[in-house]
Amino acid sequence: MAEELAEGLVTGGATRPAGFLADGVFCGIKEVDPTGAKRDVGCLVSERPATVAGVYTKNVVKAAPVLLDQERMQRGTTRGIVYCSGNANACTGDQGMANAREMTALLAAQIGVDAEDILVCSTGIIGHQLPMDTVRAGIARLAPAKERHRDAATAMLTTDEWPKEGAALFEANGITYAVGGMCKGAAMIHPNMATMLAYLTTDAPVAQGFLQAALQRAVDDSFHMISVDGDTSTNDTVLALANGAAGGPEITGGAAGEAFEGALRAVAVFLAKEIVRNAEGATKIFGVEVRGAATAEAARVIGRSVAASSLVKTAFLGSDPNWGRIMCAAGYSGVDFDPNKASLWLEDILLFENGTPTDFDEDAASALLDRKQSMFILDLADGDATSTAWGCDLTTEYVIFNSDYRT
Amino acid sequence: MAEELAEGLVTGGATRPAGFLADGVFCGIKEVDPTGAKRDVGCLVSERPATVAGVYTKNVVKAAPVLLDQERMQRGTTRGIVYCSGNANACTGDQGMANAREMTALLAAQIGVDAEDILVCSTGIIGHQLPMDTVRAGIARLAPAKERHRDAATAMLTTDEWPKEGAALFEANGITYAVGGMCKGAAMIHPNMATMLAYLTTDAPVAQGFLQAALQRAVDDSFHMISVDGDTSTNDTVLALANGAAGGPEITGGAAGEAFEGALRAVAVFLAKEIVRNAEGATKIFGVEVRGAATAEAARVIGRSVAASSLVKTAFLGSDPNWGRIMCAAGYSGVDFDPNKASLWLEDILLFENGTPTDFDEDAASALLDRKQSMFILDLADGDATSTAWGCDLTTEYVIFNSDYRT
Repeated sequence: MAEELAEGLVTGGATRPAGFLADGVFCGIKEVDPTGAKRDVGCLVSERPATVAGVYTKNVVKAAPVLLDQERMQRGTTRGIVYCSGNANACTGDQGMANAREMTALLAAQIGVDAEDILVCSTGIIGHQLPMDTVRAGIARLAPAKERHRDAATAMLTTDEWPKEGAALFEANGITYAVGGMCKGAAMIHPNMATMLAYLTTDAPVAQGFLQAALQRAVDDSFHMISVDGDTSTNDTVLALANGAAGGPEITGGAAGEAFEGALRAVAVFLAKEIVRNAEGATKIFGVEVRGAATAEAARVIGRSVAASSLVKTAFLGSDPNWGRIMCAAGYSGVDFDPNKASLWLEDILLFENGTPTDFDEDAASALLDRKQSMFILDLADGDATSTAWGCDLTTEYVIFNSDYRT
Repeated sequence: MAEELAEGLVTGGATRPAGFLADGVFCGIKEVDPTGAKRDVGCLVSERPATVAGVYTKNVVKAAPVLLDQERMQRGTTRGIVYCSGNANACTGDQGMANAREMTALLAAQIGVDAEDILVCSTGIIGHQLPMDTVRAGIARLAPAKERHRDAATAMLTTDEWPKEGAALFEANGITYAVGGMCKGAAMIHPNMATMLAYLTTDAPVAQGFLQAALQRAVDDSFHMISVDGDTSTNDTVLALANGAAGGPEITGGAAGEAFEGALRAVAVFLAKEIVRNAEGATKIFGVEVRGAATAEAARVIGRSVAASSLVKTAFLGSDPNWGRIMCAAGYSGVDFDPNKASLWLEDILLFENGTPTDFDEDAASALLDRKQSMFILDLADGDATSTAWGCDLTTEYVIFNSDYRT
């Protein structure tokens, strides 16, 4: 089930900031759900033009919506996002591009803006054309409203079990602003990007250049620091919309910028951990805090390499303090370091010290690994940089699920 | 069970070439095996000094035997290799280095050569000191002989189910020479290197520089083109020994060099495929032939990315022709290509043509994927380079096995 909101976060999701509306309905891209809980088409709308920033998959095989958004982003503002789940609209050629454009035109007509004002996302199976009759009927039923954020968050999901939402408040220039967000994950979850969609909103008036830079930094510390299975998807998209509905002077950096970035990062890190927690088949998560690295990038690369290792993930499933697999995965990350200076802890249990194994209590270590969340700390004694990556256990359910997820 | 030898290969393993002897015994590094089939310490010896070449793990966390061999390799010749399985002697600090040195000294004393003439390998659990009393008793019982190559091949194994051996003959300068080899794999199998040990032998008089270059090329086309789980180990080692026992002029290239390389590559590719076939939990294997790439390296990187994808492996387990996962894994390989020019086949079934899905027969495709070996062909229409990578299905047995493989 969904984790409680992290300390400092508030409810209300992506429509917590003023001037944002959302909705999600079931139209039938996914198989019919007898419980009525499923959603597969949704929208997130700003009542006024919002400055927009985006971070996209680095996969050279990009889905049609990604290609369209990268083009439209260049306008600098948007009025909203229309999206569907169950079909990725990837590897779908010219027809896929036409279908992505039509989705934006349909929402635009409904809320009275230009098609070019709307962005689009899709997630699901690759290589199938969208069932456009179904999608059209679905978009026609969207009625964006402030209170429908949970329907909107549900409409992003593929194999996720629960919707992922969070919000945070910050003060700047004497005004209380909000940052909100929603995301989906589940599989094809790996740095650059985690296979995922995330939309982040704020009612603060953030300048476009600063918004893009702040988003990139927040993504580097959150969605880029998680790994489920090493697969980077064709559709990964993180969008940030800043509509300025709460007023005040434009935020371009300084103290106001820092306050904004703190809230943005808090929401992004919470959502990223929610993705790992809800990964296909996952039962628990672990963090890898790399300390004493020469650079932040070195710390990130090593942490991600450990979090992505199938052998670390399976050992973690078995609550096996087989720390050699962690040192091995750190060693093949591509970052150079001296293993003879490195030390490794599980919480406060020292496992490996300056290149030599310790005689630690294996039962105590195993008991720590049975909990919902565990933290490994790897100190390279090579500098001052620190970063934390997040991974989950690799279970038989992941394998069964992904061998059954038929085309 | 072990595959039949590939076409063109012959029996006799690593001691098929003249002047090589081997043995393997059980000493108790591994748990006692009531069937008596287990071996955990072994040696491969050349009756005369052999020119030596090596390719080692790129992991910065290198096991003690790897560090020692890299140093000793610089002598240019060797008299043999002593090795053990069940313990990797990795992350073991100064004591680990001393233990690796002692292993070489023990075999050297037994066969009457200098310790510096002997190389050493270990494979197994990381982060534990070798049980040296056990290892000493084991090495004392080694009695290298031509006919004991299968015991020697068995002594390398960790979680492998069967020993992996092969040999090939070639003619050069009017003489019939042999190339032989043995290897182990099972898990931590990923390019650069597959987590594996392999020893290749020949009775041809191959010059050291040419031997090293030929070995690197053979490894690039074989052990570097397989992936089980994306984990690159601390111990990966491929050694080639050329003792010239069959006589003739030194081989430095030309027609004789080509004949040697052909045999070396045939043995290496066979052994590499044996590793994938016998990967932990694997039930079947697939090839990814990348055609029309701009460079051989581009073809290799893309093929390995597909062969390493957890989502491709799980779809393959379910015989699901979910080719979108293949295009996705090709796309995140890091190589730039134009997906709109790419086409993908499963054997002779066209799945994706110039960036657009085809309307193929899914049942026929699924039936092909049920066989022991399947081949995907990805044509990038971007050049003339070709390469083939090999992967296996990711099964629940892999997960169960690796969560149970306790420290």
